[in-house]
Amino acid sequence: MTEVSRAGADTPVQRLTGPEIAEFLEEVFPGSMENFTIEAVEPMRARIRMPFRPYRLRPGGTISGPSLMALADTGLWVALLAMIGREALSVTSHLDIDFLRKPAPADVIAHTTLHKLGRRLAVGDVIMYSDGETVPCARASVTYAIPSSYRG
Amino acid sequence: MTEVSRAGADTPVQRLTGPEIAEFLEEVFPGSMENFTIEAVEPMRARIRMPFRPYRLRPGGTISGPSLMALADTGLWVALLAMIGREALSVTSHLDIDFLRKPAPADVIAHTTLHKLGRRLAVGDVIMYSDGETVPCARASVTYAIPSSYRG
Amino acid sequence: MTEVSRAGADTPVQRLTGPEIAEFLEEVFPGSMENFTIEAVEPMRARIRMPFRPYRLRPGGTISGPSLMALADTGLWVALLAMIGREALSVTSHLDIDFLRKPAPADVIAHTTLHKLGRRLAVGDVIMYSDGETVPCARASVTYAIPSSYRG
Amino acid sequence: MTEVSRAGADTPVQRLTGPEIAEFLEEVFPGSMENFTIEAVEPMRARIRMPFRPYRLRPGGTISGPSLMALADTGLWVALLAMIGREALSVTSHLDIDFLRKPAPADVIAHTTLHKLGRRLAVGDVIMYSDGETVPCARASVTYAIPSSYRG
Repeated sequence: MTEVSRAGADTPVQRLTGPEIAEFLEEVFPGSMENFTIEAVEPMRARIRMPFRPYRLRPGGTISGPSLMALADTGLWVALLAMIGREALSVTSHLDIDFLRKPAPADVIAHTTLHKLGRRLAVGDVIMYSDGETVPCARASVTYAIPSSYRG
Repeated sequence: MTEVSRAGADTPVQRLTGPEIAEFLEEVFPGSMENFTIEAVEPMRARIRMPFRPYRLRPGGTISGPSLMALADTGLWVALLAMIGREALSVTSHLDIDFLRKPAPADVIAHTTLHKLGRRLAVGDVIMYSDGETVPCARASVTYAIPSSYRG
Repeated sequence: MTEVSRAGADTPVQRLTGPEIAEFLEEVFPGSMENFTIEAVEPMRARIRMPFRPYRLRPGGTISGPSLMALADTGLWVALLAMIGREALSVTSHLDIDFLRKPAPADVIAHTTLHKLGRRLAVGDVIMYSDGETVPCARASVTYAIPSSYRG
Repeated sequence: MTEVSRAGADTPVQRLTGPEIAEFLEEVFPGSMENFTIEAVEPMRARIRMPFRPYRLRPGGTISGPSLMALADTGLWVALLAMIGREALSVTSHLDIDFLRKPAPADVIAHTTLHKLGRRLAVGDVIMYSDGETVPCARASVTYAIPSSYRG
């Protein structure tokens, strides 16, 4: 995940670190840090882990769809929060997800990339892997509406 | 919801009633009937209610996104199950959702319509309303992969 | 398409008629009225026809995917334009489409419905039928970004 | 684009080269090679260029949405064709696209990645850049239905 730092002068500046985001998330969504671990944050990128919990299983021993959707949503939100800071509470306006393979009963890791950080909308991609796998179990893209109080 | 019955000879035959689907759902996903109520099932259509639960709230008093995604996914799955019957356990392959308005802290009702019921894929739309509202709080479309054991 | 008029007091007011939209479209996208016919416009809804043209065919005698995408995009844009008027040139920010059945070498009719008309975003659904068919050949949803000059 | 070759033993084998795909495309879609240039093909990846043509412009000097959709669709199809070979004519079943920035009146380059190549479905992502830009003008994901004659 060093590619972004090469992007140069036009790369937006990161405002929050991973631990600062974790603290903020726990504040506004108490308990969320039991469900997700922020592993890495860079400008326009983040890596989030969803630890395995038996209650996320579906019949057949697979992780539930809504759990993966929540991971995609939260994971890219972390990358967004890093850029716009804690004063702006953006909301998800669109999410689409493709379930590619049955995820194993294990942690799932989301690699998230913001492609656009506009004044009104932010858009990015998420690729999710079962822990230890090299082929993804799901992909998603998410759009967030940024409140008009945010001015870049 | 009487339009479908006018569709005539080429409308697929419904195999399961609402109560039969509820029984099956409770069997394969124990506890799911605490989260969803099947209100109406017709050929290629279903209406599902997600009763209000305080734990679905987000800060600001709005129903969480993953709850709405789960409602869309389960709601259209009920319409699909009605048509293909209980022997075929289809899985979600794609879901996309637009969050249109903040849903009130109330029940949410999903109106689901199957547009395609093929041998391998089923695709449909979901429109969701907060109880008592006439404008939707979310829309979704979902694709299911039908197992090859199913032969129409 | 009379359901909308029942919606009552909170239904937004329609600003442009079908012929006014056709005139505006021809002005900003010269030639577009050779590709599309506006058949009906109501508050939050429109019906658009894409006349059959041999150059839209793909091998196998089916209408090309990009033609259906353009129909979905333009068709819902007509419903939007009817509501916000000609001063506001909104742009497509998201489109997703499911190709359900091979469309016949014939006209395709798009039934479009706006679900949300906000100050910044408009979102709606499109169902497309080959002329004379009762089952759809494609479904789509589209999001438009409304310029900040528009104030409801 | 060397990451894929590191993926090792479980990476599917590429069956067609770029020139072989170009020849096949011209055969089944005569004229398509005037619209697209295949720049690179690797296992599960391809890079496609859409040369600038004045007729793709919209008012405001931007490349039209349907042109970008066609680029996404064709670009990922090239990556798929490389893997499954010319005997299997897969069809697009779903496409979603986010328009991120107005593309300049210039060539557009699509970087396409297949995330899943199953027996029945293939799914992948596309990132599109105006020539010379480092931030994308659009992102897309596409699903293809693979005919049952294909057996991996």
